[in-house]
Amino acid sequence: MNSPSQYTSINRALIVGGTHGDEMSGVVLAKHWLKDPSELHRKTFTTKAVIGNPLAVERCTRYIDMDLNRSFAQENLSASESESDPYEVKRAREIYQNHVKKEAVDFICDLHNTTSNMGATILLCKAGDHFSLHMANYLQKNCLDYALPSHVYLIDTKEGENIYLQNITRHSLALELGPQPQGVIRADILSRMRNLVNCCLDFIDLFNQGTEFPCFELEMYKVASKVDYPRDADGEIEGIIHKELQDKDYLPLKPGDPTFQTLKGTELFYDGKEEIYPTFINEAAYYEKKVAFIVMQKIHQVVPALKVQG
Amino acid sequence: MNSPSQYTSINRALIVGGTHGDEMSGVVLAKHWLKDPSELHRKTFTTKAVIGNPLAVERCTRYIDMDLNRSFAQENLSASESESDPYEVKRAREIYQNHVKKEAVDFICDLHNTTSNMGATILLCKAGDHFSLHMANYLQKNCLDYALPSHVYLIDTKEGENIYLQNITRHSLALELGPQPQGVIRADILSRMRNLVNCCLDFIDLFNQGTEFPCFELEMYKVASKVDYPRDADGEIEGIIHKELQDKDYLPLKPGDPTFQTLKGTELFYDGKEEIYPTFINEAAYYEKKVAFIVMQKIHQVVPALKVQG
Repeated sequence: MNSPSQYTSINRALIVGGTHGDEMSGVVLAKHWLKDPSELHRKTFTTKAVIGNPLAVERCTRYIDMDLNRSFAQENLSASESESDPYEVKRAREIYQNHVKKEAVDFICDLHNTTSNMGATILLCKAGDHFSLHMANYLQKNCLDYALPSHVYLIDTKEGENIYLQNITRHSLALELGPQPQGVIRADILSRMRNLVNCCLDFIDLFNQGTEFPCFELEMYKVASKVDYPRDADGEIEGIIHKELQDKDYLPLKPGDPTFQTLKGTELFYDGKEEIYPTFINEAAYYEKKVAFIVMQKIHQVVPALKVQG
Repeated sequence: MNSPSQYTSINRALIVGGTHGDEMSGVVLAKHWLKDPSELHRKTFTTKAVIGNPLAVERCTRYIDMDLNRSFAQENLSASESESDPYEVKRAREIYQNHVKKEAVDFICDLHNTTSNMGATILLCKAGDHFSLHMANYLQKNCLDYALPSHVYLIDTKEGENIYLQNITRHSLALELGPQPQGVIRADILSRMRNLVNCCLDFIDLFNQGTEFPCFELEMYKVASKVDYPRDADGEIEGIIHKELQDKDYLPLKPGDPTFQTLKGTELFYDGKEEIYPTFINEAAYYEKKVAFIVMQKIHQVVPALKVQG
């Protein structure tokens, strides 16, 4: 048996809603908790809520100048201020300065919605952070809802290449709930997200109090590649997500399965050799990123036991 | 027996997609038909497709300065041009001048999507236009899809108060298909809309060729009133659509049924005395219009037989 992974206790947690201004579950929850944070109270640490992108929230749009959740590269955070910086670069720096440098936040929970049928996705950025992997496992075991099932989604960013909000703290996790249209507040999605956030805080409290979480094997979906829409010579989208693929996030796509259909009636098929797992199928915000879906590989990782240090 | 309603034949039909730039089914169909209009060809009349709001389509947003589909008031159309006019007022005038004044279009089909669960809604603006009522009936009988059922939605605008695109031609109809998030192209919704448009053209062709359509009784939902979200003293939304009301468009709401829920856990209930039919429940674009849902009354109208004149 390996010895448990040990980390120091969590002192300050930050819940960020509205990192994308039109992803409404997080916006509504953060606004509520800013007015009345009592629900976030736990014995062993403090928690604060914040609006990620206030101007984008005000305008109910994803972002103003650029995607905030791609603005947390280390060179942005450490660069000196410039008036000509995009709004989101300034805001990324501000979040980092206020909450990490000054307040010493050591855990961030970043709240997102997707138009894809991704249920309650727990999105992690560092496969090496056993604390966050244990939290994901705790959520999967203790916060169930069969209508919005939970999956662990891993973007295994290389050292120094993390551009997400999750880059700025030791431990972190994003919740990506859907399907929900941009600008819409669905009660079912909101309630699922709220329960998950509370469960994150419960986990931290147990961890801080010395609970030892045993070794386990975690099933995850790891980003492998991105697939664009078929396009014509002018770059216009020529094929749309096939009706058989729509809403099938996290389900296996087998060689020969349909992927796109054109308005002329042509069908396109997956011509790879191995079964893959598409996610973010038909996400509204990814049309401009030229992503029709993201290809995932299903992996399993043994995670050692976890215990607070000291 | 009353004698049939008679109208002159239709010479030119116009299909408008992208009246709202982020309602993608119409955008994609209009772009396709602009490149290849062969599918729109019928023997007895000509049909053209057009993008309603090109700049909004380019930016994938509902509108630039104001809602185009509220810009077709007679005073806008007849006013002299001014550089300071909102983009959509200029565009409304342009559509009217190019397609009605110059080309003498006599039928418009306006293509929309909604984030609400409204299936295939056929939206009419004039209860007195028996041609359009017959077309709606023809669609309901000849273009079925149980996954996206069809309903007739009537905004009975008073003479001189019509501000919609449907104001500018003798006959018209809008298709309002959902649920579909803004900025997303769903194959099922696209295909349903495409079939409905083709069915509209088939109906016109039959009408022009002298088919007599018999008298019938039409079930419609007529706009009665609008309900806003519960708000706090600052005007911020305090209650969201109740989970029991979400997705229940066109289903009866009975006295005592839940309508909203707050983040504090309070539930609000419908306190009217009569059964009503909510529609546009949780439509993304109606948050800014302060509309949580639109209250409809179910009505029945006897429509006399229809025949082409002369």
